[in-house]
Amino acid sequence: MKESLNKLKDKTRELMVLSNIGSVLGWDQQTNLPEAGIAERAEQITLIQALHHDRITFPEIGELLEDLGCSDDAPGGTRDLDDVSRSYLRAVWREYSRAVKLPARLVTELARSASLSQAAWVKARQAKDYQAFAPHLDTLLKLNLEKARCLGYQDHPYDALLDEYEPWMKTADLRRVFRDLRTYLQGLLARISEAPQVDDVFLLKPYPVDRQEAFGRTVLADMGFDLSRGRMDVSAHPFTTSLGCDDVRITTRYNENFFKTSIFGIIHETGHALYELGYSQDIRGNILAQGASLGIHESQSRTWENLIGRSRAFWNHYLPRLKEYFPQQLSGIDMDDFYRGVNKVEPSLIRVEADEVTYNMHIILRFELETALLEGNLTVADLPLAWNDAMRDLLGVVPPSDAEGVLQDIHWSMGAFGYFPTYALGNLYGAQFFQRLRQEIPDLDRRIEQGDLGCILAWLRENIHVAGSSKTATELLKEVTGKELSVEPFSRYLEEKYSDVYELSGM
Amino acid sequence: MKESLNKLKDKTRELMVLSNIGSVLGWDQQTNLPEAGIAERAEQITLIQALHHDRITFPEIGELLEDLGCSDDAPGGTRDLDDVSRSYLRAVWREYSRAVKLPARLVTELARSASLSQAAWVKARQAKDYQAFAPHLDTLLKLNLEKARCLGYQDHPYDALLDEYEPWMKTADLRRVFRDLRTYLQGLLARISEAPQVDDVFLLKPYPVDRQEAFGRTVLADMGFDLSRGRMDVSAHPFTTSLGCDDVRITTRYNENFFKTSIFGIIHETGHALYELGYSQDIRGNILAQGASLGIHESQSRTWENLIGRSRAFWNHYLPRLKEYFPQQLSGIDMDDFYRGVNKVEPSLIRVEADEVTYNMHIILRFELETALLEGNLTVADLPLAWNDAMRDLLGVVPPSDAEGVLQDIHWSMGAFGYFPTYALGNLYGAQFFQRLRQEIPDLDRRIEQGDLGCILAWLRENIHVAGSSKTATELLKEVTGKELSVEPFSRYLEEKYSDVYELSGM
Repeated sequence: MKESLNKLKDKTRELMVLSNIGSVLGWDQQTNLPEAGIAERAEQITLIQALHHDRITFPEIGELLEDLGCSDDAPGGTRDLDDVSRSYLRAVWREYSRAVKLPARLVTELARSASLSQAAWVKARQAKDYQAFAPHLDTLLKLNLEKARCLGYQDHPYDALLDEYEPWMKTADLRRVFRDLRTYLQGLLARISEAPQVDDVFLLKPYPVDRQEAFGRTVLADMGFDLSRGRMDVSAHPFTTSLGCDDVRITTRYNENFFKTSIFGIIHETGHALYELGYSQDIRGNILAQGASLGIHESQSRTWENLIGRSRAFWNHYLPRLKEYFPQQLSGIDMDDFYRGVNKVEPSLIRVEADEVTYNMHIILRFELETALLEGNLTVADLPLAWNDAMRDLLGVVPPSDAEGVLQDIHWSMGAFGYFPTYALGNLYGAQFFQRLRQEIPDLDRRIEQGDLGCILAWLRENIHVAGSSKTATELLKEVTGKELSVEPFSRYLEEKYSDVYELSGM
Repeated sequence: MKESLNKLKDKTRELMVLSNIGSVLGWDQQTNLPEAGIAERAEQITLIQALHHDRITFPEIGELLEDLGCSDDAPGGTRDLDDVSRSYLRAVWREYSRAVKLPARLVTELARSASLSQAAWVKARQAKDYQAFAPHLDTLLKLNLEKARCLGYQDHPYDALLDEYEPWMKTADLRRVFRDLRTYLQGLLARISEAPQVDDVFLLKPYPVDRQEAFGRTVLADMGFDLSRGRMDVSAHPFTTSLGCDDVRITTRYNENFFKTSIFGIIHETGHALYELGYSQDIRGNILAQGASLGIHESQSRTWENLIGRSRAFWNHYLPRLKEYFPQQLSGIDMDDFYRGVNKVEPSLIRVEADEVTYNMHIILRFELETALLEGNLTVADLPLAWNDAMRDLLGVVPPSDAEGVLQDIHWSMGAFGYFPTYALGNLYGAQFFQRLRQEIPDLDRRIEQGDLGCILAWLRENIHVAGSSKTATELLKEVTGKELSVEPFSRYLEEKYSDVYELSGM
């Protein structure tokens, strides 16, 4: 039994190395790739994905799993093993049993179509030409439907796809959560829209990029990101990626006339990076050394970005420091001005620029459109119209062109259906964890004001990071907060914060 | 037959993609890797090498080659095929027949030892502690001897190793060529040492790095390096690498107080890059899309760096431009001062900083030591002493420590025995090609003076680059110059140039 386990560990170690190689290729593509290199890079990434699929479906892996008693009913096996080993088996079983259901042809076709589609999307968005992108999206939708059929599902094809990013989450649960969330947000937005708007014009002055970077790097270091185990670079779309346990890289982008983009982007991505760097040594380099789910991952980045990074306590500490970098730009701006400015709420067209109140509406919109597409209740041809209708309905704004509408996000062009909800889940998980953190560190605000971010990282490490994916999102949430997923901690957080920012009266 | 050929092309296409993936990993390691990431990166590179070895030795490849009539006696096969296809088969046969002779265990052990050894070498060089590196070198020497035995050879184990970098070259031929070269160089050096030394103190002033880079980039562009198909970055050890046919990257390093390092480095690496970017479309992406040999590759970089980049004609064009970047530093320096300054000859300790007269002595030294190690006539323990003796003998200088002596180069720590001679061969091939180029472009100097480097690139493309490795080094040399390899064009070039620089009387 010990021998089977060790053999399995050897085999899956190679899978992690292949994943990391894929991350190197992806990181370089986003940060350094010369224009003409894209076709060959797509071929390289496709080969690594094919090798990965090839290796996870090796019959020998199936035999070893069988030998250890793993099955759909007992994914952690039936042998007398320690908890970490059982979690490890559960994770391998999950990946193996999903992979063997997918024909190699489909995996390759998805990878190839996604790579072609991404290139087409870049051009279509530039040209504001949805028609040029539609055939690609149609292909990816069909391939995703085939993938869902191969993987199998009980209630909804979306279940099979969502499960890749948010294991064990169901579409029906999401619907319920999103209904509650939507109801609350619509009420809050209505109240905010009646209050006087805050002034953030001071954020739109020129903030030289090199100073933005220098300040961002001090915050990143204060948060505990050790750059001997990572990097920060520039890319068009900010992201975090692990090229190894000791090589976690974030990217950001700079907008000279919109200071918020880089600083909150850096805090967000550092939140992801700290999770990746915080897995326990005893799962180092194995399949458990990854986030419990994308939603849990997003909870880390959104907590740092919003619950901490847009708090009064944080800027009580950092505003005087920021003024040393930008004395002219912030001359005459006091703490209250600054705090309100970085927390301005305004319905807008672009998800990645949305404030934390309207952000989830963008996710609900995508969730509804994705499920309708998969159900056959919406065609790819009708998608732009449906998008614009939903924007009007949810946020009261309409894109002037598809570039600011249906074409704004890269994810569909990557073939990632079922991915967007994890962003909203991140906000909910994050608020729920943070409520607990506040209970356990009662003087949190005072500590943050004194510049002590280490107490937050220590708590997150101990309670969330070290486990990696040895616990599921649900298990983790239950264990840390004692509760099931709920909209309540998030809505309570928004309520308190925006009552303050917009001086609202009670609900 | 056509079907077998196409199947083979599919299989070998994957090998090229794997090689390119290895190049991505290697490039990133040298330019971006966080300190703590080295162990995992080594594991990634080892896996790619193992996969490559695994795939080139697939029985199916052997069967396809057999089917096409390939053998040691007929590496290009026995079927009625066009020349490119026969060259292609010869190249695949060569790689396949070498690979099947090497056990997978040996390939992995070499990769792993090399990676451990490189890390040990970095530390040993810093600490000037040869003893800390010696056990690694000993292991790599033994593994290389085993590799040579596996590959087989007639006269000398060095033949088997040399052949990896310089196909079909023999140790005995090198000995003969190096004997002629050494005799000539010793005579020239003696005459130069009696002439008054040139003054290059103006090169040692501070030249701001950002201006060095800006000037270097203009030269690189003039040479024809299209950066939509490549990049230039910074690394500790400059190199060129292909991450794909359309993604060729060079690196350089900057020394504020030694301007020559970056500019001649950039010209050198761009010479390599132009070769990689110049392969014919009909061998694009297949195994023939690489240099004919490392010696031929080096002929391209050394020709650009020295025969063109250190010529009077080149600086007649560029010195006025350079003075716009560095008006203070070059104030009062005329063309003659500059030309002599960048061509100063002086026996020195470090190969990569050596002038073009003494450079080959560094290579001859390494060749003699490497062959003695493989013959068992020299032990790893005695190597530093032998190194210092040879330095005294060949160049009249002795390293103050092993850091400036036996530990200076990375190559042995990479397990690359048989590699160094290709540097000297590059000088010889380069001069031989250039003699021909001068015959075909009689007004070359005038053109260079007018800034027309395009005529050089066009000639090199047509005569050397397009062929890739569809011709061997010997075939290429014969075809382009009508002659076998000879020291004469190189010694004639040095004779003319240094008679001018040092105002020597005739031989």
